[in-house]
Amino acid sequence: MDKTVAYSRSVLAQVMLIDKANSIGNIHGGEIVKLMDSTAATVTKKHSRCAVVTARIDKLEFHIPVRVGNLITCTGELVFVGKSSMEVRVRVEIEDLRVDRPPKLALEGYFTMVAISDNGVPVGVPGLILETPEEIEAFEEGKKRRQEYKKTK
Amino acid sequence: MDKTVAYSRSVLAQVMLIDKANSIGNIHGGEIVKLMDSTAATVTKKHSRCAVVTARIDKLEFHIPVRVGNLITCTGELVFVGKSSMEVRVRVEIEDLRVDRPPKLALEGYFTMVAISDNGVPVGVPGLILETPEEIEAFEEGKKRRQEYKKTK
Amino acid sequence: MDKTVAYSRSVLAQVMLIDKANSIGNIHGGEIVKLMDSTAATVTKKHSRCAVVTARIDKLEFHIPVRVGNLITCTGELVFVGKSSMEVRVRVEIEDLRVDRPPKLALEGYFTMVAISDNGVPVGVPGLILETPEEIEAFEEGKKRRQEYKKTK
Amino acid sequence: MDKTVAYSRSVLAQVMLIDKANSIGNIHGGEIVKLMDSTAATVTKKHSRCAVVTARIDKLEFHIPVRVGNLITCTGELVFVGKSSMEVRVRVEIEDLRVDRPPKLALEGYFTMVAISDNGVPVGVPGLILETPEEIEAFEEGKKRRQEYKKTK
Amino acid sequence: MDKTVAYSRSVLAQVMLIDKANSIGNIHGGEIVKLMDSTAATVTKKHSRCAVVTARIDKLEFHIPVRVGNLITCTGELVFVGKSSMEVRVRVEIEDLRVDRPPKLALEGYFTMVAISDNGVPVGVPGLILETPEEIEAFEEGKKRRQEYKKTK
Amino acid sequence: MDKTVAYSRSVLAQVMLIDKANSIGNIHGGEIVKLMDSTAATVTKKHSRCAVVTARIDKLEFHIPVRVGNLITCTGELVFVGKSSMEVRVRVEIEDLRVDRPPKLALEGYFTMVAISDNGVPVGVPGLILETPEEIEAFEEGKKRRQEYKKTK
Repeated sequence: MDKTVAYSRSVLAQVMLIDKANSIGNIHGGEIVKLMDSTAATVTKKHSRCAVVTARIDKLEFHIPVRVGNLITCTGELVFVGKSSMEVRVRVEIEDLRVDRPPKLALEGYFTMVAISDNGVPVGVPGLILETPEEIEAFEEGKKRRQEYKKTK
Repeated sequence: MDKTVAYSRSVLAQVMLIDKANSIGNIHGGEIVKLMDSTAATVTKKHSRCAVVTARIDKLEFHIPVRVGNLITCTGELVFVGKSSMEVRVRVEIEDLRVDRPPKLALEGYFTMVAISDNGVPVGVPGLILETPEEIEAFEEGKKRRQEYKKTK
Repeated sequence: MDKTVAYSRSVLAQVMLIDKANSIGNIHGGEIVKLMDSTAATVTKKHSRCAVVTARIDKLEFHIPVRVGNLITCTGELVFVGKSSMEVRVRVEIEDLRVDRPPKLALEGYFTMVAISDNGVPVGVPGLILETPEEIEAFEEGKKRRQEYKKTK
Repeated sequence: MDKTVAYSRSVLAQVMLIDKANSIGNIHGGEIVKLMDSTAATVTKKHSRCAVVTARIDKLEFHIPVRVGNLITCTGELVFVGKSSMEVRVRVEIEDLRVDRPPKLALEGYFTMVAISDNGVPVGVPGLILETPEEIEAFEEGKKRRQEYKKTK
Repeated sequence: MDKTVAYSRSVLAQVMLIDKANSIGNIHGGEIVKLMDSTAATVTKKHSRCAVVTARIDKLEFHIPVRVGNLITCTGELVFVGKSSMEVRVRVEIEDLRVDRPPKLALEGYFTMVAISDNGVPVGVPGLILETPEEIEAFEEGKKRRQEYKKTK
Repeated sequence: MDKTVAYSRSVLAQVMLIDKANSIGNIHGGEIVKLMDSTAATVTKKHSRCAVVTARIDKLEFHIPVRVGNLITCTGELVFVGKSSMEVRVRVEIEDLRVDRPPKLALEGYFTMVAISDNGVPVGVPGLILETPEEIEAFEEGKKRRQEYKKTK
């Protein structure tokens, strides 16, 4: 049974402390990518109700540095679904809790996850029901990325 | 300027893995309390826009075990505010991502945080605007807990 | 066979470093609670020789901040034992190793643990032999807490 | 003074254990990306002798799963250098230490790092001396990626 | 002012979980050495009331494997004190909490620490008051180890 | 079939950050020993293609402090092989990535590992083929250490 984008949209949020920062108080890029990867896994597990593995990360851009003590909120949603692969856009917003200001977009990127059975073989996943013009446009772009990627193989 | 309960309501969410579990796959209680404490700190930093320290944890009850791979969502909201102390109720809901079932309440507890200045001295915090009957009732109960606690001192 | 309080009394001690501290050098409350929870688990495993889970944390009070590099010593002892639940008082003392001064009480709290079988079902535990007036008094208070808690259910 | 590709080529290697794995023994993608990011930082610090931050991750592909206990060897080398940005290709090879078989390529990806001064402002970096046909080809491709990326901005 | 061996004797104890174990449930040797090093640092900070660094580890022997869930108790005491170097014997005893059996010696080793000032220069430390025949004998052996070590330099 | 020293020589390398350092920016000794132990395990797993456990650490000397952000490179090679025990010399070199200077030797030490079967019983390992005068000399010294150690038992 196909599922909407809203069905699997997921939010992970945490506050990272000094143990994940460099000497000038910026959180290491790798730590944030780890949290984004966990968000993408959450989204795709919800969509497929299967185990998933990361297959590809693309266009991951760091806009502004994440600081020690910032509230880090990762929102993931499906943009494209193939036979057993699923592409998730993950947006990371940060908030300095000491001041009253809206969250800012700090990073975004695309994670392709593959649903697998318990013996590690790719399995089919439900289709994606597109409900808004933005979702349709994002799906078309995801499809294009997929085709370009397959050509280079 | 006083603030509503909604103003500082905060959600932290993450997926805990095998490194935080015991040998039968249950996440250690201490790890969850750590996340609840971080949620209470987030709420009270937003309300006070100050540094905060944990002063007291009360009535923290574990209803059902949290399992490896569960999505753990902590929601914190203020129930009582004194001069510089703030009491937060933190509710922890868990979700098994492999099945399509609503989240379940796994734990809840009350965290009292104190706003402090950079030299560690307690500082005054904004009052709490109560908007619903539930908020008013929760505030009254928080006040009672506070008075009982002061008596035992 | 019933056991004394002394039989299961346990001490855990460690030095926490900068990776568990906030930016002004205080160890995060959640980290200390994690160590207290581990102490309570040690005490109750010794008493019951069973697996245990945390069921409730109560009256956990932070008296003075724990600093980076402090020696943290947690002492846990049973105060009350029911059919399969066991209440442990955990006291945390800290010591600044750079100065010659006696340890100070930094936190204390009550942890209720439940003995479980390997399939997660509560199992009966030995009774508690009370040897001193203090132990008898603490047991009576624990019993009262237990009854009050059951009433609110 | 310009530097060769060989000048900053760097190798990071470690064995990841069960605390970084999922329940079927595969190391989490995010953990490997963290190590790749650290490799890219090492390469670009050597080239620039400056602090660096991650700006972009591209075409990161997971070919085969990394297993608990595998020796993970990350080799990073510069492919393109701009004014203050540097693109590094990171290849991850894995080796099952229990069998006598050559290492296998498990992942590869492109990390763009930016050299920054101590106040976080981008600073100029040395040029890249290309010594082999492969280095020249890789540089041209990196230049193309850079131009395409700037167009989408 | 000179100090006795008893003055600085220190005990660190903790329970290590699955995140520090190999696939057959044995805690990694490196993790235990880390705890022993922390014990030696505690002892020598107490004796010198200074910062200390590890200078040498000797004769560290693993007698029996440490298992997940064991209570690990490290006892450190000074055996030899030079001008600014201090040698500590650390003994590690383990206890399986599920059975009623006395603790067993799992490891022991000798750690030489050096007291340093805040700019990293070695500083003089108090002498060691020997109170028992065992302490005198251990001191003589420590002195011999020290002399042999200096010869090989 | 016997193996050369070169066959199992292994290099582990990583950059340690502030979460493994003390308050003046030196990496804790125990963290480095953990990495050296992992290097010794890698070397001996390659030589024996078996599971291994640490049996003994000797003559581990810290020459210069390891600083936050240093590239830490551990090189391990076999010096002596007995029936089921294998002695590895591990050398740790460090490199300050911000300056163009050759790596410096920071620590070295000897790790004796024992090959074990899956039920924890020691198993025989291949002999060591010595190819250079240095390897022959190191082997003789290792043999002597082994004999002295056996005498003290």
